[in-house]
Amino acid sequence: MASSSSLTLSQAILSRSSIPRHASASTSSSSSLSLPSFSGLKSTSSSAAIRRRGPTTTRLPIRASAAVETLDKTTETELVEKSVNTIRFLSIDAVEKANSGHPGLPMGCAPMGHILYDEVMRYNPKNPYWFNRDRFVLSAGHGCMLQYALLHLAGYDAVKEEDLTSFRQWGSKTPGHPENFETPGVEVTTGPLGQGIANAVGLALAEKHLAARYNKPDSEIVDHYTYVILGDGCQMEGISNEACSLAGHWGLGKLIAFYDDNHISIDGDTEIAFTETVDSRFEGLGWHVIWVKNGNTGYDEIRAAINEAKAVKDKPTLIKVTTTIGFGSPNKANSYSVHGSALGAKEVEATRQNLGWPYEPFHVPEDVKKHWSRHVPEGAALEAEWNAKFAEYEKKYPEEAAELKSITTGELPAGWEKALPTYTPESPADATRNLSQQNLNALAKVLPGLLGGSADLASSNMTLLKMFGDFQKNTPEERNVRFGVREHGMGAICNGIALHSPGLIPYCATFFVFTDYMRAAMRISALCEAGVIYVMTHDSIGLGEDGPTHQPIEHLASFRAMPNILMLRPADGNESAGAYKVAVLNRKRPSVLALSRQKLPQLPGTSIEGVEKGGYTISDNSSGNKPDVILIGTGSELEIAAKAADELRKEGKAVRVVSFVSWELFDEQSDEYKESVLPSAVTARVSIEAGTTFGWGKIVGSKGKAIGIDRFGASAPAGKIYKEFGITVEAVIAAAKEVC
Amino acid sequence: MASSSSLTLSQAILSRSSIPRHASASTSSSSSLSLPSFSGLKSTSSSAAIRRRGPTTTRLPIRASAAVETLDKTTETELVEKSVNTIRFLSIDAVEKANSGHPGLPMGCAPMGHILYDEVMRYNPKNPYWFNRDRFVLSAGHGCMLQYALLHLAGYDAVKEEDLTSFRQWGSKTPGHPENFETPGVEVTTGPLGQGIANAVGLALAEKHLAARYNKPDSEIVDHYTYVILGDGCQMEGISNEACSLAGHWGLGKLIAFYDDNHISIDGDTEIAFTETVDSRFEGLGWHVIWVKNGNTGYDEIRAAINEAKAVKDKPTLIKVTTTIGFGSPNKANSYSVHGSALGAKEVEATRQNLGWPYEPFHVPEDVKKHWSRHVPEGAALEAEWNAKFAEYEKKYPEEAAELKSITTGELPAGWEKALPTYTPESPADATRNLSQQNLNALAKVLPGLLGGSADLASSNMTLLKMFGDFQKNTPEERNVRFGVREHGMGAICNGIALHSPGLIPYCATFFVFTDYMRAAMRISALCEAGVIYVMTHDSIGLGEDGPTHQPIEHLASFRAMPNILMLRPADGNESAGAYKVAVLNRKRPSVLALSRQKLPQLPGTSIEGVEKGGYTISDNSSGNKPDVILIGTGSELEIAAKAADELRKEGKAVRVVSFVSWELFDEQSDEYKESVLPSAVTARVSIEAGTTFGWGKIVGSKGKAIGIDRFGASAPAGKIYKEFGITVEAVIAAAKEVC
Repeated sequence: MASSSSLTLSQAILSRSSIPRHASASTSSSSSLSLPSFSGLKSTSSSAAIRRRGPTTTRLPIRASAAVETLDKTTETELVEKSVNTIRFLSIDAVEKANSGHPGLPMGCAPMGHILYDEVMRYNPKNPYWFNRDRFVLSAGHGCMLQYALLHLAGYDAVKEEDLTSFRQWGSKTPGHPENFETPGVEVTTGPLGQGIANAVGLALAEKHLAARYNKPDSEIVDHYTYVILGDGCQMEGISNEACSLAGHWGLGKLIAFYDDNHISIDGDTEIAFTETVDSRFEGLGWHVIWVKNGNTGYDEIRAAINEAKAVKDKPTLIKVTTTIGFGSPNKANSYSVHGSALGAKEVEATRQNLGWPYEPFHVPEDVKKHWSRHVPEGAALEAEWNAKFAEYEKKYPEEAAELKSITTGELPAGWEKALPTYTPESPADATRNLSQQNLNALAKVLPGLLGGSADLASSNMTLLKMFGDFQKNTPEERNVRFGVREHGMGAICNGIALHSPGLIPYCATFFVFTDYMRAAMRISALCEAGVIYVMTHDSIGLGEDGPTHQPIEHLASFRAMPNILMLRPADGNESAGAYKVAVLNRKRPSVLALSRQKLPQLPGTSIEGVEKGGYTISDNSSGNKPDVILIGTGSELEIAAKAADELRKEGKAVRVVSFVSWELFDEQSDEYKESVLPSAVTARVSIEAGTTFGWGKIVGSKGKAIGIDRFGASAPAGKIYKEFGITVEAVIAAAKEVC
Repeated sequence: MASSSSLTLSQAILSRSSIPRHASASTSSSSSLSLPSFSGLKSTSSSAAIRRRGPTTTRLPIRASAAVETLDKTTETELVEKSVNTIRFLSIDAVEKANSGHPGLPMGCAPMGHILYDEVMRYNPKNPYWFNRDRFVLSAGHGCMLQYALLHLAGYDAVKEEDLTSFRQWGSKTPGHPENFETPGVEVTTGPLGQGIANAVGLALAEKHLAARYNKPDSEIVDHYTYVILGDGCQMEGISNEACSLAGHWGLGKLIAFYDDNHISIDGDTEIAFTETVDSRFEGLGWHVIWVKNGNTGYDEIRAAINEAKAVKDKPTLIKVTTTIGFGSPNKANSYSVHGSALGAKEVEATRQNLGWPYEPFHVPEDVKKHWSRHVPEGAALEAEWNAKFAEYEKKYPEEAAELKSITTGELPAGWEKALPTYTPESPADATRNLSQQNLNALAKVLPGLLGGSADLASSNMTLLKMFGDFQKNTPEERNVRFGVREHGMGAICNGIALHSPGLIPYCATFFVFTDYMRAAMRISALCEAGVIYVMTHDSIGLGEDGPTHQPIEHLASFRAMPNILMLRPADGNESAGAYKVAVLNRKRPSVLALSRQKLPQLPGTSIEGVEKGGYTISDNSSGNKPDVILIGTGSELEIAAKAADELRKEGKAVRVVSFVSWELFDEQSDEYKESVLPSAVTARVSIEAGTTFGWGKIVGSKGKAIGIDRFGASAPAGKIYKEFGITVEAVIAAAKEVC
């Protein structure tokens, strides 16, 4: 074993090719590039790191032998180097062929990538969905060729050679950023920076939660790590601070994040915009922090850091790994030019020369191939071992096993929907946020995977599960998650929970207007097929005095415009139950429930079945599918439409009232059904909704009228605002008379 | 002067009424409430604070005499107490009358509020817009009664007694959260948490920038502080970390933030979700941190902290002020119940008893009134003094004075629009992101207030002003701002810049899809009338290989649905110039410019004037306003519409091509103009846009066709995606034939 040799091939290469920017790196300081070195900056973080190693943190001694356990699995450093360079060149070659992509990160992070996938992580390449696998998230998703190269070497079916050569092409399994729905083996969808680290917090939360619920003194049936690589860009995004603050608070000891500290972002050196001391910040957030000074070739340093991280069980660990972006490229390493463009034929050749790589593009040397080939049988063995363990567990703990199985398979317990509450017009009027809580509490009893919470508004969003306590560091078996005022992190954490296991059903809540804070995470829910339930209360001017900053206007439209997300706005108890039924059933499509702060009556004619169709008639005194006028409402305004219909009917009109609770679901119905609700011959249509009229034109047609609010709200008691804005029975009646 | 007396009235009151949670507070530890004390937590931050006072920071000795300078302006502590209690009761009474609002923060923060407005800040109540005033931002906007009470006492016309008694009522000047557009004296619009602190960073940036540009050795013509109060909620939001990281990076020494450390948020004690060490995080972010342990009655501590903060000129300062939320309420202080609800008549009475307050609701005692009355003459004197100074400055530096004047008044230099570049169909094809840069660079020469930058995508967004360097700590006179990968902070910082001075025109940039990260700040731009220019490139699937995470689909619709914001999607050079003309002219309405990554031809018929109308005909071979079909396109798809028209005309059709660059502007045109572009008799209409068809129904009508993309994008070369998604000339021709 030559692993602790102090002068490796790659270090020799580095000394003649790349730029050590830190005096502490064990490489020559001669340089062929004239980039600023920012030594002042680094000496700061260096001294911070030294301070950190003082008495304030309990630091385990790092010994060369600390890495022995994992090193047993590896072979000599020369082959490690070769494997690492294989990863580098697969990345270089794929980006070059596509003439598009980001070679810099894979070239710099190949060492940590190799160690993770070849030495550390437990997974089964032939079953990427094996429940107890270690999870890996590339938060710096633009470096996806790193992950594709690793999946390829490890033997995942999704990434064969032809997938590497079709990188970023139409229909390939290797899109421009990692997408879990395209590439089995990729856990989450990243690219938008900061999302991945927050997803990883969700994955680690799910592990800690399930372990606490299902592990037994004699059987750790849930037991895996979550690894992340994130870069400077992720670090700058606020979402990562939100999620990492929670990870520290929750003490997610099995979350290990590698911070690729390469000091380059798209606009150049991070010096221009990012001079904070990340170490101090993370220590403030309650993380254990380790600095690997030589991430380019310091394999043993990386291994030791991972071992140290695993030994710290009550805190997540940030391993700051100082790397050179584009390592190995003689003229582009350590510059922004290697971040997001192909190297170009000439520089690819120069890099081949520089790293001593004589192979054709996309070639995996035989010894490297052979070395990695063990992961297929080893992975199968890992899963088989776990399956045997589970069989044993099932015998001893049949009830827990059944529950856990429903979480790992996503199969909903038979008859779960019978738990949904039902209402009659005589049931008391109530706010849909309260009705939502009745549903959540009813469902939590029958759905073992339901868990969630609010961004510090539990008592306003009405999201507490009364039979459970708080998910906290020392009570991780509980199901009420306290996210604090961190909407964006909350959404992305829920994506991670949803993608951890098909039977986990996360919900999260805030005021509807604050979806603006978490929209990027919600879009990824929709894209990555995470069936998160977004419980969004205070859904209109009906919230009253808090005023326009808190009153959503354009939000219903903005989600109706988003692909693969269900926007649901129930009007009462039955519709709230219907919305939950739809949301629970849609495990690959997130649902947004817009709920009222104010009390609403239980309306005659509403139903769960109606909600499932998206739009349906709740009352009608016409015949032959030919009403004089159709009044269409959603949520709190359905009551207004119904009252207006009562008045109009007194005047002899044939009036249909339609609840349009989910446009997306209605769109999916047959033409025949749609015609039965909104007959094309009836152009006299009036819609009413306390939000923008944008989009309603298509529903009411050019002869109809859309009543809504096309301005910002106002601060006043809710009733007053409704009246001043003309969201009234009188306005509907007047509009109906105008159009018919 | 009894200010340094160690036992004040309020301390005596505190000892019998409220709960000291920290052993270090100089109050009795007896308690009538059984709330958890979390002493473990506090001892941690306490020791952190002690560490902080060690050799790592240059700390000025705090002496009682340090406060003397400001104390000269005040009177004895008893009157200060009375003033502070006046603030508390005005807040209590207003919330009580409205039966809605947040009394807890004003009750806890009244001491710092009093010291700021009565002793420290320089302002002129009768001219809230005096340029050189100190700025104050209540980032914890729900506590707005604090600010209204202070503005009332200080003599601002916007907040008279009748405004206090109509708190949160329709049409009042005292809405439920601070709104600059409703209440002169309020600088920005807050409520959505974290926005205010980021706005404040923008205000402080503007001051530092203008001071660097216009101050002379003999005249500091720009010279003010920016003060903020933020709470735990603001601290948890990612946006505040983004903005504060930049504030530290930029060394904004005149930014002084008070962190109301009251340990209570809506869901209860912050212990449940917020246990990070804020001090360490802020030190990591490059801030100077001070801890005031007794924010309830420690007036001298607060004064000393402000003096210390002012002495630290190269770093922003965070003053962590430990307070008791709802201070003075015997049964509700230090609990979430006092955060967001009226106290209730009984508890109001008990609080009156407890704080020894014999007055009627809304009463300001005569001595307090008299004490505050000096601010009107003093403010007038401050402004007069500055005006005299400016007159002097104008004589010596006429050029700089003229520029500064245009910034302070917002009057655009005559003929500025002549700088806009023009194009002919023969001008080379180019991406609108490049054309945008030509406009930015042309405008920077004639608009002294134009400054901005990108969220680490300057070279992709094409936003660099070539004649200027980077705004940095030591080069604050420059105009290229490097925001790092912090979209949300960027947007809110630009709001602060825009609201600092009417002539400052901030722009900021990222990929269009990442507006999702900053939407909350953009909505506030729209609401608070901040004319920020959002330069959003890579505006469709046209960006190609980066794939669906990077391809906007629903974003055009989502901004068209938002009130008071202009969504502009120019098609070529002339339209890009038009978009900038509109954006610059709209100083009270933000503009979003959606710009292409890919090259586009310069189309015949496009014009600046056309853009100003929002929608206009670029070519037409029909007569009598009766084309056979109208083809409507925006941005990069206008070219497709034009090409389809060419083909259709060859087949003998009368075809009109309409550029629909801004729906909002078109909506504002006369009915006659609209009819001249989209005659109601012509129902054969086809729209094409590489985004969702949501919303287009109203434009094309039930007989028309909208070509668009109602799914997520894909990773492939752009041309391939356009073809696969049917965004093609052929598709337009086919649709046109179907409809006419």
